[in-house]
Amino acid sequence: MNNIGIIGAGSWGTALAQSIAESGRQATLWAREPEIARAINEESENKVYLPAQFLSPNVRATTALEDLKGSDALLLVVPAQHVRDVLRTMRGIGLGEGKPIVICAKGIEIETGDLMSQVAFEEMPNAVVGILTGPTFAREVAAGLPCAVTVAAKDKDVAQQIRDAVASKNLRPYATDDLIGAQIGGAVKNVIAIACGIVMGLGLGENARCALMTRGLAEMGRLASAMGGRKETLMGMCGVGDLVLTSSSLQSRNYSLGVSIGEGRQLEDILGERKGKAVTEGVYTAEAMTTMARKHAVEMPISEAVYHCLSGKMNIEEAIQDMLERPLRSEE
Amino acid sequence: MNNIGIIGAGSWGTALAQSIAESGRQATLWAREPEIARAINEESENKVYLPAQFLSPNVRATTALEDLKGSDALLLVVPAQHVRDVLRTMRGIGLGEGKPIVICAKGIEIETGDLMSQVAFEEMPNAVVGILTGPTFAREVAAGLPCAVTVAAKDKDVAQQIRDAVASKNLRPYATDDLIGAQIGGAVKNVIAIACGIVMGLGLGENARCALMTRGLAEMGRLASAMGGRKETLMGMCGVGDLVLTSSSLQSRNYSLGVSIGEGRQLEDILGERKGKAVTEGVYTAEAMTTMARKHAVEMPISEAVYHCLSGKMNIEEAIQDMLERPLRSEE
Repeated sequence: MNNIGIIGAGSWGTALAQSIAESGRQATLWAREPEIARAINEESENKVYLPAQFLSPNVRATTALEDLKGSDALLLVVPAQHVRDVLRTMRGIGLGEGKPIVICAKGIEIETGDLMSQVAFEEMPNAVVGILTGPTFAREVAAGLPCAVTVAAKDKDVAQQIRDAVASKNLRPYATDDLIGAQIGGAVKNVIAIACGIVMGLGLGENARCALMTRGLAEMGRLASAMGGRKETLMGMCGVGDLVLTSSSLQSRNYSLGVSIGEGRQLEDILGERKGKAVTEGVYTAEAMTTMARKHAVEMPISEAVYHCLSGKMNIEEAIQDMLERPLRSEE
Repeated sequence: MNNIGIIGAGSWGTALAQSIAESGRQATLWAREPEIARAINEESENKVYLPAQFLSPNVRATTALEDLKGSDALLLVVPAQHVRDVLRTMRGIGLGEGKPIVICAKGIEIETGDLMSQVAFEEMPNAVVGILTGPTFAREVAAGLPCAVTVAAKDKDVAQQIRDAVASKNLRPYATDDLIGAQIGGAVKNVIAIACGIVMGLGLGENARCALMTRGLAEMGRLASAMGGRKETLMGMCGVGDLVLTSSSLQSRNYSLGVSIGEGRQLEDILGERKGKAVTEGVYTAEAMTTMARKHAVEMPISEAVYHCLSGKMNIEEAIQDMLERPLRSEE
């Protein structure tokens, strides 16, 4: 695993490339925009998505997906809603057959409700698919600060291979064969983060925020079980770890959106101001989660309350009451 | 459950009394210091431990433990190291026989390494013992802000009784019969919080802090299993919830101690400044946890590293490496 291809030169793709390159391996980074590829190759910097971070000479950028054919493993680091298209393009040029494809995008495909691994198996039935997820602010990883992630694949051996592909001096992967469970945290956490933000914006305090996070974790666990994963997987980096990072920091777009909502601002105004900038994924995920909860007959009161609150079907006081006080049919 | 006795008028005991009283029940609060009891009864305020919080007239204070004999349940809210003495005194006057005794102190008895429930069963073999634990800043609870807790007893019916005794408008208890598991979080979290503080004080970032918290949770889970509890219990308010609260907020004495250590200050200096104020429990717990880890043959690298770091057996860089990078014999 000396030659790793990274598809997507956003902040996280660039940070992963840097982390891999710093541990002495070759990182070939595909960028959609020629100016980004050029700046990486000529000035060792991704000026758009990771400005002011000097990149290792072992990071080489390209705009031609074909250039990644020599890679021992491929990391897919494009936004969740673009994963299907990119996989189709890869299949079209015969890229990725027989090699581990590690999806590093979090979330579900909104249109279908599919997890990223499901999208991958649909588009490339014979692919060796894994995922990488966990609590990772890209800038910290790029700067060489320590972090830990979950890597998952159906087959434990594949998960170990992926571990070898991404492990570096500052990035420690924990492997699991619970591919489903490992993806649930990354999908649900943005919604829980919005809920935590709302609670803080309303001034309900730290106790309430921590209670909500804990109930959110239970919500994730129930969904994981219903979809064939394991509840315990959520105790790892992919669950608790990622949830805590996303639900505590104003750096998190979803948490800060929730804070603004809690303070009484209107959703349209907040999203309007953010237009053109990074997407606040949780807003769209809340609806998709509510649909998934019904489909799998799982109780997800927090996701539902966030959805109803954002879509104006419930006022914020009712939503909070639902989140904090609604008794579940089955207490766990 | 209309008459609840609360033993200990610190900030948490007073907050619990207030929460119970606000929901229309009678709270009889035992205080060691006559001036505290007097101020509560005459001025509706605990001027020492919860100043500027107006208390309900349903909170009545006393300095005579005998006055609690009419209570339907007793909450024990004294510091962990005093629980044994208070139980002996109670036994001496026949207080608490046949009624639920709910221990609200977190932590272990340092001298013996016993959990609070073990102390209670030793001192009162026939007692109906439960515990109450979770993410609860006292001031928020006293102010009527929402919170959730874990209540535990060996017998599920007793746990339900305790739930009825403490549930109030703003305090939502979740009941479990895993009495052991429910106590582990409260015992270990202060040590993990010190570790998280050290990481932040050193400037290692949010990713590292969240990774450490997640590994800390795994550490708690391993200890719970080894002691006869259940790992999953730690996914509740008593585990994740409490850990997150303690490891994120500078309000937490243990976390802020860790931050100071990480910034390069000496333990003696920090403790010196805090003398006479509230105890930084985690400093003593770290050693006790290291002993427990050995006794139960459980790997607890974070607790051990904190202990070795605080006792000067390891420098801070080695300790961090141990916490973040030491491979476990059994990865979970």
